[in-house]
Amino acid sequence: MDYEALFQAELDGLKTEGRYRIFAELERKAGNFPQAKRFDGEGGETGTQDVTVWCSNDYLGMGQHPDVLGAMHETLDRCGAGAGGTRNISGTTHSHVVLERELADLHGKQAALLFTSGYVSNWAALSTLASKLPGCVVLSDAGNHASMIEGIRHSRAKCLKWAHNDVADLDRLLASLPADVPKLVAFESVYSMDGDIAPIAEILDTCEKYGAMSYLDEVHAVGLYGPRGGGIAEREGLMDRVTVIEGTLGKAFGVMGGYIAGSHAMCDFVRSFASGFIFTTALPPALAAGATASIKHLKASSVEREAHQERVAKVRRRLNAIGIPMMDNPSHIIPVMVGDPHHCKMISDWLLDTHGIYVQPINYPTVPKGTERLRITPSPVHTDGDVDRLVSALSEIWSQCALARVSMAA
Amino acid sequence: MDYEALFQAELDGLKTEGRYRIFAELERKAGNFPQAKRFDGEGGETGTQDVTVWCSNDYLGMGQHPDVLGAMHETLDRCGAGAGGTRNISGTTHSHVVLERELADLHGKQAALLFTSGYVSNWAALSTLASKLPGCVVLSDAGNHASMIEGIRHSRAKCLKWAHNDVADLDRLLASLPADVPKLVAFESVYSMDGDIAPIAEILDTCEKYGAMSYLDEVHAVGLYGPRGGGIAEREGLMDRVTVIEGTLGKAFGVMGGYIAGSHAMCDFVRSFASGFIFTTALPPALAAGATASIKHLKASSVEREAHQERVAKVRRRLNAIGIPMMDNPSHIIPVMVGDPHHCKMISDWLLDTHGIYVQPINYPTVPKGTERLRITPSPVHTDGDVDRLVSALSEIWSQCALARVSMAA
Repeated sequence: MDYEALFQAELDGLKTEGRYRIFAELERKAGNFPQAKRFDGEGGETGTQDVTVWCSNDYLGMGQHPDVLGAMHETLDRCGAGAGGTRNISGTTHSHVVLERELADLHGKQAALLFTSGYVSNWAALSTLASKLPGCVVLSDAGNHASMIEGIRHSRAKCLKWAHNDVADLDRLLASLPADVPKLVAFESVYSMDGDIAPIAEILDTCEKYGAMSYLDEVHAVGLYGPRGGGIAEREGLMDRVTVIEGTLGKAFGVMGGYIAGSHAMCDFVRSFASGFIFTTALPPALAAGATASIKHLKASSVEREAHQERVAKVRRRLNAIGIPMMDNPSHIIPVMVGDPHHCKMISDWLLDTHGIYVQPINYPTVPKGTERLRITPSPVHTDGDVDRLVSALSEIWSQCALARVSMAA
Repeated sequence: MDYEALFQAELDGLKTEGRYRIFAELERKAGNFPQAKRFDGEGGETGTQDVTVWCSNDYLGMGQHPDVLGAMHETLDRCGAGAGGTRNISGTTHSHVVLERELADLHGKQAALLFTSGYVSNWAALSTLASKLPGCVVLSDAGNHASMIEGIRHSRAKCLKWAHNDVADLDRLLASLPADVPKLVAFESVYSMDGDIAPIAEILDTCEKYGAMSYLDEVHAVGLYGPRGGGIAEREGLMDRVTVIEGTLGKAFGVMGGYIAGSHAMCDFVRSFASGFIFTTALPPALAAGATASIKHLKASSVEREAHQERVAKVRRRLNAIGIPMMDNPSHIIPVMVGDPHHCKMISDWLLDTHGIYVQPINYPTVPKGTERLRITPSPVHTDGDVDRLVSALSEIWSQCALARVSMAA
């Protein structure tokens, strides 16, 4: 059996389809976000180039905030590099406990539970809830993230997919189930690739009508929406009606890690049974401390959220004015539609090599085939000059390649 | 449907069985490992106690090494807190690329691939290899870690379990399979709870006899064994015969993260298809830099490995001399056998409350019922005084509770 040949054949297939991924090798410049140094991919210091990052999920630039870095430095010196164990075996530090309280408070819940990543929090929490509640049926939005899909799949519970953001379809499916089986409705607030937002109130109405638990992924919303950065559910006054709120520390909060928030019993249940929580080394205390500092700051300050929305509106307005086709949505994510994986990569390469503008091409399986795109994420750290350069470069490539423009609506 | 009652009932069951986990809330003192501050569990600063940690997986105390902390501080200041994206979307930094090269070199392989944890590396790599190779059959050692079991389970590939470390059983199972199906033999070098070591050479002989890939988890061995800390396979000159070596950055290397090392094509295959690699925020660059510093140091220095083995031998000798029952093994892990979850927890609580000695009780499902234990992990940072206090306290509790001692063999 020639395993190398099997691996290579699959990789060749990706290359033919134009969806073989080449990672840009960067080094963000703390204190000078969104600027970064790009390496030549050979790992050498030669051939570096200065670039402006336009596709980071550090949406507010909190990864360079003095409070965050200060807390991390201080905790590194006080407690060392890693946690040194699983949460159960010597790895629970005071920093974890403080962070879990902060997260519970952020979402107005009794408790919160940390995971090593948002991916793991979805995978572990959903697989545990769905597999341990006898006969549980999961109702999963068709647009859900890979981590949710894998968690549900891992549970081996029955899963019914409802049409994306379609409350009538959810209602229809819930009505088809017996009253006495546990039901778990899993969905997101902001969908990361289209930037659309779920009708949370209606979904919760439907959950309550049928006695279903609600599981809401707010990873692309925490820190960004709501008076204290609690997410879309906070903004809409709905947090207390959600059974499980899931979030990340690795996007707007600028660090790393994931969590769920909910009742004491629910968090304790997942804590006690989730393999992906139990059998893994805890987050380094310095990361926990950095995340706590970030959350605390964004609870008290709306400056970053307001500047974020202003930047997003500005980029959208400018791109609209020159007819660059964007998917419309009410969030901070700007999907510039290309629709072909080869074109998408070519435009991205040209922006990077010629203009030092970095926007990663988003291809299948991250988005459906035919909807390949550039996903632009403006942030408060992008200057007017950065916006000018982005708009001018996109205009140039759209003209050079005779790409379709949309009507110049205001 | 009263979900709260369902959660609570399961939790009550754990409490009745004596295996409800209560986490010790600690704060390790960098520069003064294995000493830590224990919090009262109410999160307050009141009621703290100084304790000596005897159950950390930061086996060498590298989490407080100046090179590691220095690299983390420097990278934090230069690059910021988090990576800001997935590896594909703005999250690959120069620090990740450098670390992957360091890991490939450590194991004498063409390439390495980073994951956010050792758990995720096992889960993602095994599930991808087993599900994407058509008809793949996994042969899994019966003692494998939860992360491997979940990865294999997630793949939905056919899985045959072979008796723990039993090469004849592995041979028998491999012989039963057609020659032309892909086969993946998954096992560990050092098993974390019993501390026994796999007969790697014989297992590899058997893999080669039947044309099977080998997947070796070295998480409890990297940094600790082999002239450069490459693990048991390095010590025994076998690294080049292993298809996939999996390891962690969160134990002997003192930081956080996991990885696989192997051929370019194998790593590229997992990189390109593993959901748990693709759809998650990359490790913070500061963690990658800290891990690189740790690996570099342990490649060049054997002082820590020698001191580690000396400490382990000393604790084992001292406990043996007073008849404390230990599971015999050739590794650095000392399982003190108790055999009952309630006793195990009681002894642990008493050691902690009365003597400030922290050894977490290890109960089911981490170990089989009836084999509950205290898992002691001596390290180079434990002093002779620490050892004296541990031995004396264990002797006292064994006498007080009239626990069985074994014959006083030398």
